[in-house]
Amino acid sequence: MLYLIGLGLGDAADITVKGLQAVKSCSRVYLEAYTSILTVGKEALEEFYGKPLILADRDLVEQGADEILKDADVTDVAFLVVGDPFGATTHSDLVLRAVNAGIPYKVIHNASIMNAVGCCGLQLYNFGETVSLVFWTDTWKPESFYDKICKNRSAGLHTLCLLDIKVKEQSVENMMRGRKIYEPPRYMTVSQAADQLIQIVQRRREEGEELGMTEDTVCVGVARLGADDQKICAATLRQLVSCDLGGPLHSLVITGRLHPLEVDMLKVNAEPNALEHLQMIDSSTYYS
Amino acid sequence: MLYLIGLGLGDAADITVKGLQAVKSCSRVYLEAYTSILTVGKEALEEFYGKPLILADRDLVEQGADEILKDADVTDVAFLVVGDPFGATTHSDLVLRAVNAGIPYKVIHNASIMNAVGCCGLQLYNFGETVSLVFWTDTWKPESFYDKICKNRSAGLHTLCLLDIKVKEQSVENMMRGRKIYEPPRYMTVSQAADQLIQIVQRRREEGEELGMTEDTVCVGVARLGADDQKICAATLRQLVSCDLGGPLHSLVITGRLHPLEVDMLKVNAEPNALEHLQMIDSSTYYS
Repeated sequence: MLYLIGLGLGDAADITVKGLQAVKSCSRVYLEAYTSILTVGKEALEEFYGKPLILADRDLVEQGADEILKDADVTDVAFLVVGDPFGATTHSDLVLRAVNAGIPYKVIHNASIMNAVGCCGLQLYNFGETVSLVFWTDTWKPESFYDKICKNRSAGLHTLCLLDIKVKEQSVENMMRGRKIYEPPRYMTVSQAADQLIQIVQRRREEGEELGMTEDTVCVGVARLGADDQKICAATLRQLVSCDLGGPLHSLVITGRLHPLEVDMLKVNAEPNALEHLQMIDSSTYYS
Repeated sequence: MLYLIGLGLGDAADITVKGLQAVKSCSRVYLEAYTSILTVGKEALEEFYGKPLILADRDLVEQGADEILKDADVTDVAFLVVGDPFGATTHSDLVLRAVNAGIPYKVIHNASIMNAVGCCGLQLYNFGETVSLVFWTDTWKPESFYDKICKNRSAGLHTLCLLDIKVKEQSVENMMRGRKIYEPPRYMTVSQAADQLIQIVQRRREEGEELGMTEDTVCVGVARLGADDQKICAATLRQLVSCDLGGPLHSLVITGRLHPLEVDMLKVNAEPNALEHLQMIDSSTYYS
């Protein structure tokens, strides 16, 4: 049996009782380590489970699936994923390979940012399409996520922005020379994401485009959701640029039309300077 | 401290280790019992936790919040919610009351249908706005969800349809006579939901409207997600009308534009008769 087990969002104790039982029963346990991270590392998980873990990077999952699935028809193998196994990313390919090899699989679900973001006070059924923000380079500055955000907003919907993670990336030089030397991991912050968005807003304004959002749009920065030191910060996009929410992972929500109850919840986590904007929304009952 | 604890989707063992520890530490534990259900009842949970549970129906949560929050500043109180505390519904009101009373609160997240639905093989970031289907009555047949589905589809997005739950409902006669006699609980099935949708499609067709979906649109019926006997059934809307997925809870997904990997995953769970449609999609690489 192949178990795909969600670890939730915070630390080792966020695994479900069912998931922990499965981990303990497995002869090999892989930890997927490139689409998300917990606030604790591999060692803390190994201690909690009482088991050694095998780190599964992108290469192993995408090219070494046979190794992961080896003997899984006669023994139990666990594949651990931060959040939910089918959360922000998909491990459909591994499942399909198991199915094709006649290996039964079982999913043990857990929270992911896709549903846990509801704790910021915005109602999940008022969210539109989720978007991803990637680190811009000198030559590659995609903006398509901005248009999706505006489309959601024009329908009154909020947008969850998943922020880029770069793990085990090689510099161009090292890649060309075939040197397996990796850059330190990078995790996009709410501040960086807000800065990217503002650059787009400014560029579009200069081009005379009608703007679907501005620097004053109310947004919510979320950091380490589900951990003891999680931070939720409601503020304008401009304010979020200078907001330090601490260590990874971060996510950003761009609000759409706000329900009064949502405004009340945002106030609980508002930057003092953002409160004024939320009061304004309160009296206008519409989004800025 | 007020703990809002998600129970996940299947049975008692789907609570997280952190959630179970919190339940054990609380002096009172409420079980929210009107927006969702597990496949096991209150007694199974009580046995698993080694604690008595207080059932919290809509009246208690909406009108008796003071009772739930009583002494929560000096003792620990848990409020258990199937799925995630901020999943398909919101318990923002209870949180706001706690905040206003100076009671700290903590959320322990879990899977909800909003993210676990990803296990059907459709990628979560390809979903648009979630909709709710309610039981129609002779005089009230709302159709607004249909227009939202079509809007999602025109943007290529899938739609998760949450299906109605009627718990502790009174008949009009009993309500008027003030008799606290309740009807048996009702849970909308995938078959009933598909039938409603087809009625709308047919009516709109008769009115000459351009259709955003048809009886041949590929949909996915999902039942008891996360439980050992979960069922996932990919089929056309018409086929789903005669599909019996067993006991509650059910959800329905209307697909938008399908990625080849999504088609492959749907085939794993396809009705034999639906396979033909999925092969067609495969070759056209577009949705029907």
